[in-house]
Amino acid sequence: MPSLPDMTTPNLAALAGDATAQGGHPAVPAPDAGQPEFTEWLQRVGDNCLILGHRLSEWCGHGPALEEDIAIANQSLDLIGQCQLWLGLAAEVEGRGRSADDLAYLRDVLAFRNVVLVERPNGDFGQTLMRQFLFDAFHLELLRGLESSTDARVADIASKAVKEVAYHLERSADLVIRLGDGTADSHARMQKALDLLFPYTGEMFADDATDRAMANAGIAPLPSTLKPAWDAVVAEVLTAASLTHPGEVWQHGTTGTGGGKRGIHSEHLGYLLAEMQFLQRAYPGATW
Amino acid sequence: MPSLPDMTTPNLAALAGDATAQGGHPAVPAPDAGQPEFTEWLQRVGDNCLILGHRLSEWCGHGPALEEDIAIANQSLDLIGQCQLWLGLAAEVEGRGRSADDLAYLRDVLAFRNVVLVERPNGDFGQTLMRQFLFDAFHLELLRGLESSTDARVADIASKAVKEVAYHLERSADLVIRLGDGTADSHARMQKALDLLFPYTGEMFADDATDRAMANAGIAPLPSTLKPAWDAVVAEVLTAASLTHPGEVWQHGTTGTGGGKRGIHSEHLGYLLAEMQFLQRAYPGATW
Repeated sequence: MPSLPDMTTPNLAALAGDATAQGGHPAVPAPDAGQPEFTEWLQRVGDNCLILGHRLSEWCGHGPALEEDIAIANQSLDLIGQCQLWLGLAAEVEGRGRSADDLAYLRDVLAFRNVVLVERPNGDFGQTLMRQFLFDAFHLELLRGLESSTDARVADIASKAVKEVAYHLERSADLVIRLGDGTADSHARMQKALDLLFPYTGEMFADDATDRAMANAGIAPLPSTLKPAWDAVVAEVLTAASLTHPGEVWQHGTTGTGGGKRGIHSEHLGYLLAEMQFLQRAYPGATW
Repeated sequence: MPSLPDMTTPNLAALAGDATAQGGHPAVPAPDAGQPEFTEWLQRVGDNCLILGHRLSEWCGHGPALEEDIAIANQSLDLIGQCQLWLGLAAEVEGRGRSADDLAYLRDVLAFRNVVLVERPNGDFGQTLMRQFLFDAFHLELLRGLESSTDARVADIASKAVKEVAYHLERSADLVIRLGDGTADSHARMQKALDLLFPYTGEMFADDATDRAMANAGIAPLPSTLKPAWDAVVAEVLTAASLTHPGEVWQHGTTGTGGGKRGIHSEHLGYLLAEMQFLQRAYPGATW
């Protein structure tokens, strides 16, 4: 690989130096407490919304029925709207002069912090739905925990998003049950989707140093503490859907330094970003 | 759509103005005779090689057998090598300071001039092979005609490329016959591929003003004159392959102002470019 310039990160030392020369008042905002971990964590939450929202947008005009097409497009918009709030706060906390748009459109693949589950290709409608259900059940538990965050900005975003995500889960659980407990073909497809995607769910509950720093600060619940509630919802829905729970299977990104949360992604994310970022890459700074 | 700046075309007037200020010697080369049509035509020939070459590169590491994987990768490299010569000449004839790389990596979709056939998705191996055969048979006839071009640069590139393309056709025709006349499944797939792709072949032989200008200048044969030889090769191979010729079917891009040759592309090309151009878009000017 060529040695590539970092074009998206303002040179903080230079900015501070300029500011000092101008009388000692730096032009950049003061960093938040625990800035690096908080920024990292906010990108994890925001990137999950962005990447899953983009994946859902790929269905637009291709849904199996008009009602589903519109529902998926709306869910995509919900998630991208939430992403804007999370990444906007990430940029604010980072204090380096970047915007939510900069984070979404000008980071390259290794800087993304979403879990691998949400970057999985859409596959058939069953795979899209199963991915959605497995994520929604986690997402709702997370947001409920965040409503009592010690950071008022986090609690505020969570209390807006939790209403949307409660509906996302209601919808995806309902459809998983209807298709899992449907025809032989729909049942087989949903079981296949479950077996394919389940090994990507462990990463959502794997705690690391960033998660522990956030939990210690009272900003966010420790991911592992969300698992019992998620397990219960998943078990209940899979039973109602006549689907076989995969049980204790090997999980991606739960050991060592791997996992999308730490920037180790599947091959699929780069292709997604190439499409998603094309306009801003080809026409830098273009606005509508 | 937003109003987007044209970032890839040097401002010729400004360059000329600068040059005049420096003593009246413009820094840009003098335009070739018939420059606009010649540049346009060279981009058609070069873009066919580039886009088909890129499509073939998508198979790298995914071929159905090691031998096929390597053969396809080699063919991809042949075509991208030819593209470099054609687009290099296009840039030279254009005389606006662009390079082959600028044309490949910094044009947006509407500026591409390849036929729609070569931007078709790979589909299964049978579709990739059928697309290759239908194009190779045209490509070889074109290059044979170009060997006697009145433009020595064109004749020179053609005489290099014709050897490679003769082998491409030998290989694709052989495989179309083996799979068409193979198992029931391989036969059905090849027939399906043929029926799917045949309506995109007409564009290769549809003459327009650019083609006529090139033919009048003795630079290139008129596309329509290549059709009888192509028809004969296609008929012979399809018969040997036990495949049913689709006959006279409706053809994309052969009437009015449509067709990839005139920049009217299918939805697939934009996605291909987003991937192909990502590195130069994200890291402008990056070199190895």
